[in-house]
Amino acid sequence: MPEPPRALFDQVCQHARQIALLRSIEDVLGWDEQTKMPTAGAEYRAEQMALLAGMIHRKRIDADYGRRLAELAESPLAADPLGDAGATIRRLRRDHEKKAKLPTSLVEELARTTILAQSAWQKARAEDNFNLLAPSLERIFALKRDEADALGYPQCRYDALLDDYEPEMRTGEMAAVLAGLRAELVPLVAAIGASPRRPDRAILARAFPLDRQEQLGRELAQAIGYDFRRGRLDVTGHPFCTTLGPNDCRIAIRYEERALGASVFGILHEAGHGIYEQGLRTDQFGLPLGEAASLGLHESQSRLWENLVGRSRAFWAFALPKARARFPEALGGVALDDFHFAVNDARPSLVRVEADEVTYNLHILVRFELEQAILDGQLAVADAPAAWNEKYRDYLGIVPPNDALGVLQDIHWSAGLVGYFPTYALGNLYAAQIFAQAKAELGPLDEAFAAGKFEPLRQWLAERVYRHGRRLPAGRLVEKITGKPLAPDALMNNLRAKYGPLYGL
Amino acid sequence: MPEPPRALFDQVCQHARQIALLRSIEDVLGWDEQTKMPTAGAEYRAEQMALLAGMIHRKRIDADYGRRLAELAESPLAADPLGDAGATIRRLRRDHEKKAKLPTSLVEELARTTILAQSAWQKARAEDNFNLLAPSLERIFALKRDEADALGYPQCRYDALLDDYEPEMRTGEMAAVLAGLRAELVPLVAAIGASPRRPDRAILARAFPLDRQEQLGRELAQAIGYDFRRGRLDVTGHPFCTTLGPNDCRIAIRYEERALGASVFGILHEAGHGIYEQGLRTDQFGLPLGEAASLGLHESQSRLWENLVGRSRAFWAFALPKARARFPEALGGVALDDFHFAVNDARPSLVRVEADEVTYNLHILVRFELEQAILDGQLAVADAPAAWNEKYRDYLGIVPPNDALGVLQDIHWSAGLVGYFPTYALGNLYAAQIFAQAKAELGPLDEAFAAGKFEPLRQWLAERVYRHGRRLPAGRLVEKITGKPLAPDALMNNLRAKYGPLYGL
Repeated sequence: MPEPPRALFDQVCQHARQIALLRSIEDVLGWDEQTKMPTAGAEYRAEQMALLAGMIHRKRIDADYGRRLAELAESPLAADPLGDAGATIRRLRRDHEKKAKLPTSLVEELARTTILAQSAWQKARAEDNFNLLAPSLERIFALKRDEADALGYPQCRYDALLDDYEPEMRTGEMAAVLAGLRAELVPLVAAIGASPRRPDRAILARAFPLDRQEQLGRELAQAIGYDFRRGRLDVTGHPFCTTLGPNDCRIAIRYEERALGASVFGILHEAGHGIYEQGLRTDQFGLPLGEAASLGLHESQSRLWENLVGRSRAFWAFALPKARARFPEALGGVALDDFHFAVNDARPSLVRVEADEVTYNLHILVRFELEQAILDGQLAVADAPAAWNEKYRDYLGIVPPNDALGVLQDIHWSAGLVGYFPTYALGNLYAAQIFAQAKAELGPLDEAFAAGKFEPLRQWLAERVYRHGRRLPAGRLVEKITGKPLAPDALMNNLRAKYGPLYGL
Repeated sequence: MPEPPRALFDQVCQHARQIALLRSIEDVLGWDEQTKMPTAGAEYRAEQMALLAGMIHRKRIDADYGRRLAELAESPLAADPLGDAGATIRRLRRDHEKKAKLPTSLVEELARTTILAQSAWQKARAEDNFNLLAPSLERIFALKRDEADALGYPQCRYDALLDDYEPEMRTGEMAAVLAGLRAELVPLVAAIGASPRRPDRAILARAFPLDRQEQLGRELAQAIGYDFRRGRLDVTGHPFCTTLGPNDCRIAIRYEERALGASVFGILHEAGHGIYEQGLRTDQFGLPLGEAASLGLHESQSRLWENLVGRSRAFWAFALPKARARFPEALGGVALDDFHFAVNDARPSLVRVEADEVTYNLHILVRFELEQAILDGQLAVADAPAAWNEKYRDYLGIVPPNDALGVLQDIHWSAGLVGYFPTYALGNLYAAQIFAQAKAELGPLDEAFAAGKFEPLRQWLAERVYRHGRRLPAGRLVEKITGKPLAPDALMNNLRAKYGPLYGL
């Protein structure tokens, strides 16, 4: 006698929650590695991680689990397009089928290759020598081609890889939106470059003692709604946010004495990720309805709080007095308008992670185009440095003086993350559309921000975005929330509204 | 065709290392829970821990593993009494057979009962109401009886439980040594009590800013040989030392502004545990030759560094100038002899964890005698509070004013740790014997300590104690190192040599 669908459903949910439990253990170890572990512990930590990775992979591709999901997919439970169970079954089955298509040998080979490639990348960047990395990149792109072929794809190989980070997004749609963005961004960047106005960005490079930067960051993260009772803040080399359980989502950033902006916007960014995670349904932890919809949507929440809220004049009307109180010497005499202009300094630059809001998406475009060309075999890895520099000249009007500041700056490709970069641009695009919709529904928010009131916005986001988990692919969820398909308009409107007055365009 | 013994041996070692790998993951989560985790994360952390505990238990009792160990035990590899392989096989087989004797239902029932009992204990202690805990204790002692019966024992049930913490130690031997100790300690405590001399212990209760206590503690831990490149120091509620990998052994303590002694001796104690762990063979991590011999031997190393080194006059000849530099106001005018006397204040007290070196073992004796009596059914749980108070009067001359300061003070029984307490006394006994032997071989150490030179002692300990792992049961290892069976002499000699002059006895 076949099992009733409810019993089957409970079984697959329990299995999915066990996968999440193992992944959360992996995440505790990862957090520890990045914030606390003595360096000497790295070797054994890699063994712990490999053990967990193997267990997780085996659970994900478990054949019984797959059979139950297939059976459920034909049951009345799955047929209801609006029910929680139906959405859960569809997402879990899609996850399982994708993972099950990948030969274990390929997964292991990618793991081995990318571990070595990341060491090679560090050396190549330190010595500004692309040749040290090139053989690893050749191998990684070849393996990613195999991966895409094993997964299958609707139109092009890149679709298969993009889908890992942004489920159901297509390369063609992504390319069209980014092309539209480029057409408007390139002239805007040129106009800003031609403006005689320049902010005094030295304001942010005065002496800011690290402990007070942390105190200020903590205060601002709490103000926008990051819940420290269910999280914590630590110091790390590369800022991140990680979720270790339904009530344990942690952020970590880095501080430099002469870079207030790096810590303040770093913490607003990571707190934005944290607010999304903390706004997910805890009763669905480890199941699709309790998980973020995509990397792009995740990035939209960090960018929304970092840029759309955190770099607004209204936000600093609230926050600058707090910053002045922490740093009376550095900021005592700084006017709000000057501070606001300083944190919105826009100019072409070479390094993505330091890029401003206007130029950032052009950095992404370069990577998006190059990784597609390499994956398709249209561009040889050996020619990537020259192609990189050419695109920087075309889009940003500057050329890297060396590969360390050019094609070698990001770890992503060495880590096997091909198809990941566009999620950064998607984050900016989604954020702008969602924020425009929030203002349309809630009314202007500047007055609330200036008074330190962020709860109405956070509540709106929780209700409209977070509580849906990954019931829908992110693009469809954003379209449903905003009533509009993905487009560059909202983002460009924001940029023009802010940068026009600042630079007198 | 049967597998050759070498291949079998490699298989069981790999299995044992996998158990250790899982346990080390458990330990990362435990460390995080006690030092970093937001309180709200506790519930999910318990799920993570339960998952790991189940995996570890299944691996430990794995039938194939057991069969391979049994086969190996008959092979020539196991026959060599001195070889590494033989010792490894004997220890692993013993571990497996003990675990395999325990019915899973009993293990699970104990886990459930002790989790609830620990909550009950917290409430009972807070409200000073033993009745709130009594039913849980009844159940726990009943389960521990079942456990002992399942394990089997040579003479008495308590043997089976003691063996968990101190392998191959027998209740009779333990009782004889502790009785000998009591016979000498009780009059010594009385003599100290009758002395008109008293140290000025208020010296240690002045204002000591927490950050500088940490700096001093770090300096002292490093001086005695705790390696921070393979460890770290954190803040916690209940001080501990934990090993997360062959090169990652961490300590954590707590600080109080007006209790310098608690942090300084806390850190020397935990660093002592850490020095033992860091001195184990890293190539044998996860195997018996790379593991501590017993809880008693572990405690001997924390006590050796805390008391025998850390409370010596020579140590403070080195350390007091450093403490004065950190706390010029509190310690600027304090003479070495006064400081030395203050850190060796001895007097009967009610709370074990705050007890001095002289009275400490009498606190252990009370617990050792009571837990045997309860286990044997000679003492009803309901009568434990009165029995406790009576023994405190007999051995220490004082009676707890309530149960919170009496029978309810320790978490051990609620956590199912019956047979654990004597390892604290064993630690003191082993430490004294080992330290006497070190001095016999190395010559007097005071001059070296006063000059901050602890490396000769640490090296000697590494060579004579640490590098053997648990090749031998701790008692036999100590006997081999010192040429003497376990006895109270060395400990009593130390106490008389130190306390005689201090109190003018």
